[in-house]
Amino acid sequence: MDIGIVGLGRMGGNMARRLARGGVRVLAYDRELSARDALASEPGVACVEGLAALCARIEGERVILTMLPASAATDEALRELRPLLSAGDTLVDGGNAFYKDSMRRALELSQEGLRYIDAGVSGGVHGLAQGYCLMLGGTATSIEIFAPYARILAPAAERGWLHCGPAGAGHYAKMIHNGIEYGMMQALAEGFALLAAREDFGFDAGRLAEAWRHGSVIRSWLLDLCAEALQREDALEGVAPVVADSGEGRWTALEAIELGVPAPVITQPLLARFASQGRSAYAAKLLALMRAGFGGHAVTKS
Amino acid sequence: MDIGIVGLGRMGGNMARRLARGGVRVLAYDRELSARDALASEPGVACVEGLAALCARIEGERVILTMLPASAATDEALRELRPLLSAGDTLVDGGNAFYKDSMRRALELSQEGLRYIDAGVSGGVHGLAQGYCLMLGGTATSIEIFAPYARILAPAAERGWLHCGPAGAGHYAKMIHNGIEYGMMQALAEGFALLAAREDFGFDAGRLAEAWRHGSVIRSWLLDLCAEALQREDALEGVAPVVADSGEGRWTALEAIELGVPAPVITQPLLARFASQGRSAYAAKLLALMRAGFGGHAVTKS
Repeated sequence: MDIGIVGLGRMGGNMARRLARGGVRVLAYDRELSARDALASEPGVACVEGLAALCARIEGERVILTMLPASAATDEALRELRPLLSAGDTLVDGGNAFYKDSMRRALELSQEGLRYIDAGVSGGVHGLAQGYCLMLGGTATSIEIFAPYARILAPAAERGWLHCGPAGAGHYAKMIHNGIEYGMMQALAEGFALLAAREDFGFDAGRLAEAWRHGSVIRSWLLDLCAEALQREDALEGVAPVVADSGEGRWTALEAIELGVPAPVITQPLLARFASQGRSAYAAKLLALMRAGFGGHAVTKS
Repeated sequence: MDIGIVGLGRMGGNMARRLARGGVRVLAYDRELSARDALASEPGVACVEGLAALCARIEGERVILTMLPASAATDEALRELRPLLSAGDTLVDGGNAFYKDSMRRALELSQEGLRYIDAGVSGGVHGLAQGYCLMLGGTATSIEIFAPYARILAPAAERGWLHCGPAGAGHYAKMIHNGIEYGMMQALAEGFALLAAREDFGFDAGRLAEAWRHGSVIRSWLLDLCAEALQREDALEGVAPVVADSGEGRWTALEAIELGVPAPVITQPLLARFASQGRSAYAAKLLALMRAGFGGHAVTKS
């Protein structure tokens, strides 16, 4: 069993390791030498110096997993890969792509006889040890081809991976997963913020989170992470109150609007992240001026 | 080890069972005969016919757990219990009380030399088998007295229960727990609603939920419940889109406003529940009339 992996960042590198440890012969490529070097000593992983070498060294019908950080990088890799591939080869896009882009890619590649799977991957840095949750979109035949690899990547052979539907359904499911993740994270964060604001009770947030892990209704992996993070009393010290947002949160909010389905708890955390990035400053300044205008209220100077 | 339990509903009845199975001699009372009858055959549980009998049959310093559904019922039971108790007895309120009421009760009872613990209890109907998560507020001595019982009620002797702080801190922690629960539930519900709205992908929500349980970032007990509930394709059939709200959601939203801490994802699900109860109908009607007024848009007739 061979697989080519393109993109050896945090996710791709560890997926290469997990596949190799599961008995797959992995041919790995990243345009960064340092990323290739990090995998050089991994048994079962052979790093190659380019996509041509990667394609040349896979025997039989190829299965190639791209784990690239952005949509443009995926398109670029596909453009470079296409002339190197043969009809019947399968491309698996494990990046966080917008499902509409994945549907377009599936269509374009199918015109050349290439198979395409959009694979939503969850599990983060813990996936190497615990396995990845895989949400797959594509034809039944494509999924059948990829299934032996999915069984190794997932937490167990028949658990944690699913053929969700046709092309696009895998990345759609991953998008919704991340939308739910935004809401759950924000709910936990707001709850702990309320606890912290009641200084008179002297809550030990880390110990309370640890207690909640056992028998409570909110027990969850994200709560486990909170319990770990809040163990130290000064855990938040030196952390700026700024939260980045990647594409998935925006896509889910847009999808909710396109479908006309109210999703306030999935959308609101995205807006909170925008605010944390300073993007509500203009409105706040104007609000302060309006209050001064109608009521003579003092304006705080910056 | 004796304990008196007042209130034998879903929570109180199962807590009586769990304590009895853990070796505690339980004296149980509910004013409903049917609730007492349901426990009659439970070894280690003796049902009594009134609070006087309950107090008379406990040896030594009494520990009495009240598991009553509403604040008024707790006040009434406390009023009836107080003349029957002696200094040094400990009352544990395991109901869902507003923490400010609990602080008042602790103060009132302390004037008579009675100990008071406010106990936030999570675990629902699964608590009997899996144990309850207990959030306790009160003095160190009171908690020491109750600790042997907490060790039996909790999922494990030293896991899932915590002395959170002084009187009120237990019910405060439970209130925040439920606020987080509101947000997590709503995030999951919105996510599955978006999946269902994309009929073209033909998602099997139950199987996707099951896949997400393994290795994904959103794995959680609430997701487990979704996976179970959505197993049948017609799971939502016959369910009216109406969600009740009990006090805790409102208290958390009010607390966020009192503290001036933004908690949109904890507050929004409460508003969504209000809307599900039909409480946004007035505003929707008026909005429709305004649209008709300025733009001549048609008004849907009821």
